[in-house]
Formats: sequence, C-alpha cells, structure tokens
Amino acid sequence: MNKNRNTEELDLDLIGYLPSLTESGSGTRTLTSASMRLVQFCRRGAEGNVRVGVERENGVVDLKAFDQSMPSTIREFLELGEKGMECAQRAESSGECVLPHSDIQLLSPVTGPDKVVCVGMNYRDHCLEQDAPIPTEPIIFSKFPSSITGPYDDIHLPNMSQEVDWEVELAFVIGKKGKDIKEEDALRHVAGFTVANDVSARDWQMERNSKQWLLGKTFDTFCPLGPALVTTEALKDVHNLGIRCLVNGDVVQDSNTNQLIFKTEKLVAWVSQFVTLCPGDVFLTGTPPGVGVFRKPPVFLKKGDVVECQIEEIGSIRNTVV
Amino acid sequence: MNKNRNTEELDLDLIGYLPSLTESGSGTRTLTSASMRLVQFCRRGAEGNVRVGVERENGVVDLKAFDQSMPSTIREFLELGEKGMECAQRAESSGECVLPHSDIQLLSPVTGPDKVVCVGMNYRDHCLEQDAPIPTEPIIFSKFPSSITGPYDDIHLPNMSQEVDWEVELAFVIGKKGKDIKEEDALRHVAGFTVANDVSARDWQMERNSKQWLLGKTFDTFCPLGPALVTTEALKDVHNLGIRCLVNGDVVQDSNTNQLIFKTEKLVAWVSQFVTLCPGDVFLTGTPPGVGVFRKPPVFLKKGDVVECQIEEIGSIRNTVV
Repeated sequence: MNKNRNTEELDLDLIGYLPSLTESGSGTRTLTSASMRLVQFCRRGAEGNVRVGVERENGVVDLKAFDQSMPSTIREFLELGEKGMECAQRAESSGECVLPHSDIQLLSPVTGPDKVVCVGMNYRDHCLEQDAPIPTEPIIFSKFPSSITGPYDDIHLPNMSQEVDWEVELAFVIGKKGKDIKEEDALRHVAGFTVANDVSARDWQMERNSKQWLLGKTFDTFCPLGPALVTTEALKDVHNLGIRCLVNGDVVQDSNTNQLIFKTEKLVAWVSQFVTLCPGDVFLTGTPPGVGVFRKPPVFLKKGDVVECQIEEIGSIRNTVV
Repeated sequence: MNKNRNTEELDLDLIGYLPSLTESGSGTRTLTSASMRLVQFCRRGAEGNVRVGVERENGVVDLKAFDQSMPSTIREFLELGEKGMECAQRAESSGECVLPHSDIQLLSPVTGPDKVVCVGMNYRDHCLEQDAPIPTEPIIFSKFPSSITGPYDDIHLPNMSQEVDWEVELAFVIGKKGKDIKEEDALRHVAGFTVANDVSARDWQMERNSKQWLLGKTFDTFCPLGPALVTTEALKDVHNLGIRCLVNGDVVQDSNTNQLIFKTEKLVAWVSQFVTLCPGDVFLTGTPPGVGVFRKPPVFLKKGDVVECQIEEIGSIRNTVV
C-alpha cells in the first residue's frame, strides 16, 4: 500500500492545498494505525443507497462489495472497531472493487450520529473580533444530526433568516465509545478528522430563542461535512494545519488549527465528563476569525454564493447557497 | 378488542391516577386511529435485545414474534407508518405472543432518535415562579439522545454538579416525517405521547457554559422516558391532563397540561420551520411550577431520592437517584 498518494483527483479546487498523506511514526497513539480516507457515497443512479468507501488514487473501494459482511454506513463501520479498520485496509490495498470518482456521489462521511457537538469561541482571534473574553472552559452547544449535508450539496437559505453566515471548522469523529476519557487516552477514541461548515443564522443565534444558539445553528443543510473522514494517522499534526474559507473565491477566513484554544484531546475529555461518546459522534471544534457578522458592515450569504471550506491535508468542501 | 382496558398492572404506583383508555370520536385527526400503548422492552435474561411491544391487559405482545417482518425498535417501527400501526393492532387483538410483565423489562419507548427537542418556560406558572416574562415564541433547546433512559432506571448524579433538579414533562414522539408542517396538520405527524423527566443540573444550565443550557440538561440518564408511547387516539384530550412530580412520595409539582403556553400543534409547526422532523424524534414540552431551584431555600436531588413523574391517562415513571 502506497501511503504517499496524490489525491488531486478528489478535489480539483485544492490546488496549492493538496492533502499530503505521509506516515506517522506514532503507531499506538490512535484508534488505528491505518492511514486512510474513509467516505460515504452512493453510485450515480442509486441515490439513497449509502455505502462505505475507502479512497484510493484511482477511485473509491466499495467496502461492502469487497466484503459482504461490512456495513453500509460509517457509523456502523466504526462500531466494529479494529475489525472494520483492518478490513478497510485490506480493501484499499487489494485494488479490487474500485469505482471511479465519476461514477459516485460523495455524501457526508457520517450521517445520523447520536450527537453533533459544537464548540463556541475556540480560536483566540475569533474571540477578539467579537470583544469576547478568551474562554477558560470549552463552550459547548449542538446541532441536530438532521442539519448534516454532503460536501458538495447545496446550503438552503431559510426564508426565516436574513443573516446566514459561514464558519469553517475542523471536525472530528468518535471511533470508540467512552465516558470520562482522560486527555492522554483521547486520541484512541477519535477515528479521524474532516472539514465542516458550521453555517449559522445570526439573528436566530444571537437575538432570538432566549439566546440559546441551537435554532440558529440547526436549520436543514446547516452542517456541510466532508469530503472524507481522514484517519489521524494520515495527518502529520492535526493541530498545525492551514484552515480557510472562501466565499465566491475570496478568502474570508484564513488561519491555522494551531490557534485552537481547546484542542482535540481536551474536547474529548471535557465532553465525556457529561455524556458517553459513541462511534459516529461528530465534533465541530470552532471557527477562526473572519465570519460575516463581525465585518463592518456585516456580510451575509445570499442565493448563488459559493462557500468553500478547506483544511490542509484533509480536503475541501464546496457548497452553493440556494 | 376491548379498548376500555384497565392497565393497573402496568404500574402499581398509579393508584388514583390510572390511565383510562377511552375511544376518541375524531378518527381522522391523527396519524393513526389506533388506540394503543406501544413499548420497547427486553426479556429478562436477554438484556440488550430490544423489542417492540404492544401492551394488553394480560401482558405485552412481542411484535416481532407475532410478525417476523416487524422491526426491533420503535423508531424503525414508526418509519413503517400505517403498515406498522395496523400490524400492531392485529398483534394486540390476536392475543398471541403475549409475555407477562414479570418476564420483561420496560425500556424507554424511544431510543436513539435523531432529536430530543426541548421547550423552555412553557407553563405560565413556571414563568411566574422565576420572574420570567411569558414567552411569545417557543424557546427551544435540546438534550443529546444519549441522555435517554428507561422508565424505572436510575438517574446517575454526576460528581460535577451539586444542583440536580426534577422537571416532569409531557413528551410526544413524531410518527411521520415533515418540514414546514401546518398547525392543522400537526397531529397527523405525532405518533403519541409519553412521560418525561427533564432532569437538569442548574449550576451548569444557568451559570456556566456561556449560559447555553445544553450541558446542564444532557448528562447521561438525564432523560427518563416512558413507560409507554400512548397513541393520540387513546387519550381524550392530551391538553387537559393532570401532571405531577413526587419526590420521595411528596408532591412537588402538580398542574395540568391545559396550562401549556404552546401546545403540541404549535410546537410541531414551529420547530418544523427550522428542521425536518423524523419518525422517532422526541419533544419534551416543558415543565410546570414546583422545581427545586426556585424553592426557598432551593432543594436538589441527592442519592437515594426516588422521583416519580405522572401524567393522567398516560402513566408514571419512577427513577431512583444513585
């Protein structure tokens, strides 16, 4: 298996921002030592028929076609633990059951999780741009799983909001169940990382609903996610990656995950004090500066806008506002 | 099928508060005209093996034993729509595949929904007891589905909170998918009603986490639910039912669902403006006055306390704090 793959064909918009999948030396650190890019997809013409795939240079391996005993969703796949990961590795290296990218539609790498856990004000500069104090504890809110949509799907602008905003975020996905997880064990509970847009209706988030953020964050299609679940071992250092958002080609957010106040390990440990984390649970780790609401004058998304969220080594999602 | 059943054996603590399952005259009003009490259960000795059941006078019909094609969870059952409801009615009236209550453990009637939608400050008197204005729009927050626990399961007091409180609530469960549902169509999207305790850690809800209520509401076991999902047709008028909470036998909350500010139809219509509602989604409609935090001095739950939440005609849940 050649891990130094070029995934250029996965996303033509990533020129200059290409994933570089190098081997990591710390093989026991994470849930799996497998360096992989896992996806959910459906074949064109078979929409609604979700499958788990493993990305290769020449396409996506249909995991269930490779091994009938494998499940059809990433959430069920993650519940298998090491057994699933090992099968996915065999599938990737076999070169069998590969579908070309032109034959498939990529879906969000997770659908129907138990939780979408979101973190507020987790970049120092984002706190400064809104004159908010740097938090001393993570600030946790949520979206409903029904807000998740695919990496290239449309964002539906609700009639009820005039203030819909972008937020590029590093997301991670839980791979192993746990409660009261220690920081030093946290990465063993993380399956991998992906890119999210924490789309936010600022009027509903900040002014209405008794200032509970949920409604403004959870409209249908307000959580584009993808394009792949990149296992931790495929990333050199997830806390030192460029992270950007572009609206109609203009860079509006441009930072680095090294600016995160609370990093992956801390967030897993913190939230697992409250709730049992389950395979498939998605964390959105917060957004860097540059959102529309704090611009002078404020800028919001309108129909026809194209929003692109990119994280170095992980990939890019691109969603049109309709 | 005798609909005027006495369900006394379902819950021995309901003396004086017994469900009275009479026929309703408005047969086309709701998702189904079936008057039923649906449950999830496992057989003693087969814990973890969830099944759908229909309550009868003499026990619970194991739906999958009656018809192998039926699913094992209420969520999947509800996704079948009328087909599932009709099968459950046949199962109930057949008198076959009945397990005595002594052989089974009742679980929460829904597990793993896409959403647990909660409503804040939805009883007039509960607003008055906290000097809060009567809301002009529903206030929506959420719990994670992982907080759901069974009708007689323990509530685990977290070390992290010193202020854990009770909240009896009328809950309902979505039976039919929908977005932008009109109030006049809303009850057709509701499968039925059940009893909830919206257990709340007041320190985390009100003082910490940037005053986002989520964390204080969503500790594991903070959403006892049950004992049955009672279809709308089994209830004379869901908005005119006695609702009570007892702690160690003392009545601490005692009101009527006719005091709800926003009723079922309004809540379905309101929330479906934001998100697509799915079969299995649970709504907690808010709590009446009498919670511990607003007592003088405040009272909170401690280990060994027994909390009982009762709603007339629907049933009672009883949970020990451990």
